[in-house]
Amino acid sequence: MTSPFDALLAYQRQSEALRRIAQRLGWDHETVMPAGSGDDRSEEMAALEGVMHARGSGQELGDLLSAVDPDQLAGTERRMFDLIQTDFKRRQKVPQDLAVALARITSKSHRAWTEAKAADDVSIFLPMLSEVVNLARQKAQVLADENTPLYDALLQDFEPDGSSGEITEIFDNLRPHLVDLRAEVLERNQSVSLSGHFPMEQQRVLTDRVARVFGYDMDRGRIDVAVHPFSSGSGNDVRITTRYDETNPLDSLYSTIHEVGHATYEQNVDQTYNFTSLGNGCSMAVHESQSRIYENQLARSRPFTDWLFGQMKDAFGDLGVSDADGFYRAVNSVKNGYIRTEADELQYNLHIMLRYDLERALIAGDLMVNDLEAAWNDRFLADFGYAVPKASLGMLQDIHWSECLIGYFPTYAIGNIYAACLREAMLKDAPNAIYELANGRTDTARTWLRENVQQHGRRYKAQEVIEKATGKAASSEPFVRYIREKFAQL
Amino acid sequence: MTSPFDALLAYQRQSEALRRIAQRLGWDHETVMPAGSGDDRSEEMAALEGVMHARGSGQELGDLLSAVDPDQLAGTERRMFDLIQTDFKRRQKVPQDLAVALARITSKSHRAWTEAKAADDVSIFLPMLSEVVNLARQKAQVLADENTPLYDALLQDFEPDGSSGEITEIFDNLRPHLVDLRAEVLERNQSVSLSGHFPMEQQRVLTDRVARVFGYDMDRGRIDVAVHPFSSGSGNDVRITTRYDETNPLDSLYSTIHEVGHATYEQNVDQTYNFTSLGNGCSMAVHESQSRIYENQLARSRPFTDWLFGQMKDAFGDLGVSDADGFYRAVNSVKNGYIRTEADELQYNLHIMLRYDLERALIAGDLMVNDLEAAWNDRFLADFGYAVPKASLGMLQDIHWSECLIGYFPTYAIGNIYAACLREAMLKDAPNAIYELANGRTDTARTWLRENVQQHGRRYKAQEVIEKATGKAASSEPFVRYIREKFAQL
Repeated sequence: MTSPFDALLAYQRQSEALRRIAQRLGWDHETVMPAGSGDDRSEEMAALEGVMHARGSGQELGDLLSAVDPDQLAGTERRMFDLIQTDFKRRQKVPQDLAVALARITSKSHRAWTEAKAADDVSIFLPMLSEVVNLARQKAQVLADENTPLYDALLQDFEPDGSSGEITEIFDNLRPHLVDLRAEVLERNQSVSLSGHFPMEQQRVLTDRVARVFGYDMDRGRIDVAVHPFSSGSGNDVRITTRYDETNPLDSLYSTIHEVGHATYEQNVDQTYNFTSLGNGCSMAVHESQSRIYENQLARSRPFTDWLFGQMKDAFGDLGVSDADGFYRAVNSVKNGYIRTEADELQYNLHIMLRYDLERALIAGDLMVNDLEAAWNDRFLADFGYAVPKASLGMLQDIHWSECLIGYFPTYAIGNIYAACLREAMLKDAPNAIYELANGRTDTARTWLRENVQQHGRRYKAQEVIEKATGKAASSEPFVRYIREKFAQL
Repeated sequence: MTSPFDALLAYQRQSEALRRIAQRLGWDHETVMPAGSGDDRSEEMAALEGVMHARGSGQELGDLLSAVDPDQLAGTERRMFDLIQTDFKRRQKVPQDLAVALARITSKSHRAWTEAKAADDVSIFLPMLSEVVNLARQKAQVLADENTPLYDALLQDFEPDGSSGEITEIFDNLRPHLVDLRAEVLERNQSVSLSGHFPMEQQRVLTDRVARVFGYDMDRGRIDVAVHPFSSGSGNDVRITTRYDETNPLDSLYSTIHEVGHATYEQNVDQTYNFTSLGNGCSMAVHESQSRIYENQLARSRPFTDWLFGQMKDAFGDLGVSDADGFYRAVNSVKNGYIRTEADELQYNLHIMLRYDLERALIAGDLMVNDLEAAWNDRFLADFGYAVPKASLGMLQDIHWSECLIGYFPTYAIGNIYAACLREAMLKDAPNAIYELANGRTDTARTWLRENVQQHGRRYKAQEVIEKATGKAASSEPFVRYIREKFAQL
């Protein structure tokens, strides 16, 4: 006889397997799919999503869950059960007609956003965005229980145990430090850039080597080219993409290291969790902490850039900077700009906090969509000290709102903050984690991160993972210390 | 209100979409999947197949079918209904425990076959093959109705309206002609081969060009490298693979043209059939007729090899043959050999008939697995005139039986026979179909095939497709005429 819990796990394994397939199709779509196959693929994805939704919210799963007595479960098993049940309950709460309306508006608003951005005209996008906000509020209303703010109900799609109360406190602490520090650094800092021609094939060889240096297991992954770099998959098939710019080799290198952070997290989850509800990264913020600690705290550190400078001279000859000091400055260049995705680690979080405050106000009903552009531009001027000249450099720059992704932005900044917390704890345990980077070695850092974060998958809540790894609750202080120390010298 | 028939079609669209996804994963497995991802992928495929099987044989589809009154349907709609119902009934007849036993034995017997072939020792494979035959007979027993021979019930997995009575008659007619003609040709024919070094990159460029010449739509497909060439997909995403041998450019070229035949068939099915039960090639034999007419009747014809000779001289310089006549002989070289997949178009069908007669005897209970090797070797000696020296060149050479694919082999030869029937009809309608090949043009042939065969998808039964296209029932005579005429000059 199969126990009720084993029956639930067997059902979940199949659901996880189908989710993997959907990810694999997403990868295919972005890398190898023929241009003329888009409509067919949309229909295929819709069919698979229909199956997954029915499995995740239907009677069969409800019966399987009801048959289990959770009080008889402990530890890992209890956590598995809780995650499945939470997901089931969330899916059940969203009525079919609301789910359909959300799916419809997403594809319409995405088109409107694309058009608005190209025309630099917010008025094309605002009617759709109004509907998006309206439907997102409806969704939040059905999901939120009495004590949950509406925004948190949306946030929890990305950060299952996230709370805007905690996030706001962290951000409000951090923001003045960053505003001050950014003004200070920009006043004295001269931006440095590489120059030269960097042939794609040599970039590819170097990118592959660096991916391996950071522990990416190419036997259970692969690197392809796509318009936007991403990591996709879990378990033993985790693929990343990159892109090559022959005038700017740092773009490919650092975006690859970022994606390797995401990908090795997935590859390093305890194999016994594979195909269970624990077999993935814990939350978007913890995921981002891994990509950011690889990309920034490790790979933009002086020891690592010293090693990389040697590798790049061997690969490309003259880089347009005279020495390792110049290379370090180029890798950590700080300059004015409008675009979040191009921001350095000092300014990036300011971009996020702006979006976080605005989207919270939209969902709370404190800000109307028609006032959003003005609110964006006012805040930008306040934090960055110069005005946004056009909407494509302001509120139209990001895809997220057009795709109903409200609650997603803060996870990027929380990831940076978690990364800094982890860095401090790691260097206390194992100072060599930074020094050995000078030899192109990452063993100490990778082992520490695997043991303290990555192996656990979704075994613990995000806040618990950070607290177990660092011995204390997450706060913005380590990030402030890290960023002050680093940019004081730049 | 959705009509019952529309509800059935909507359900079927989703099933077709899931089937496409399974094909896409199969492609991924053979081309880009990381080496270490095999176990995860097996679990993913099993989950998807479970969903597909449940959809294809469960209560929901049964209810949808029952709600439709087929007597109210005609033409295309009636055919759609019949195909869905036939498939449903076949799936329903196979009990769950038999399906599980078949899946289990397939993976075990595949391993045993691999080992047996490597060790050249049939005794390693025979116990598994016994079980395979036993389970295949059980499956045939549940599928066959009173008037259907057991073998036909298996054949119909590949050739839905196939009958061993018809096939046997065609083969028995053909075999003596081929045995005689092959002896005759081998007596006087000197085998000709290309020689030289054929760099992969130039082969790739030429292969791409030839694929386009034969009408492969690269906007809805792509060519990758895999160990075994194949075509995969339907509708607007049909991909093919090839492989490159730097000593033998004909391998890649002709296997690509073969796969382009399969792929363009799928690409040319009437777009209104996309995601319906009509949206694929009609049967394995009709599919093979398209790949073979492209590969053999068109691409191994003298006009086409004259054009190709010029292309190849431009690409590679000296090919090791002095003129277009030598090149034509190299493309149509006939020589002794043991291996089906390496056989020329004259000898290929003899390999098939051997397998067909043996597997029919196994299923009928007229041949015991322990006597199979002797029966194979006797028949081979009778038809080819020389003895099989070892089992890896004899009954262990093909993968099919190890994977429970019994009833598959005859479709290859029927495909050749259909191809010859189509060629005769096409040349009567449009003689230019052959002549224009000398200019690297295939428009006439492709248009004729699209209009008379490919566009119909599964709208008609295989025999009907051939009869509509050629004006008469299929027979072996056109093949005999074609092969006699061609090899008389070689």
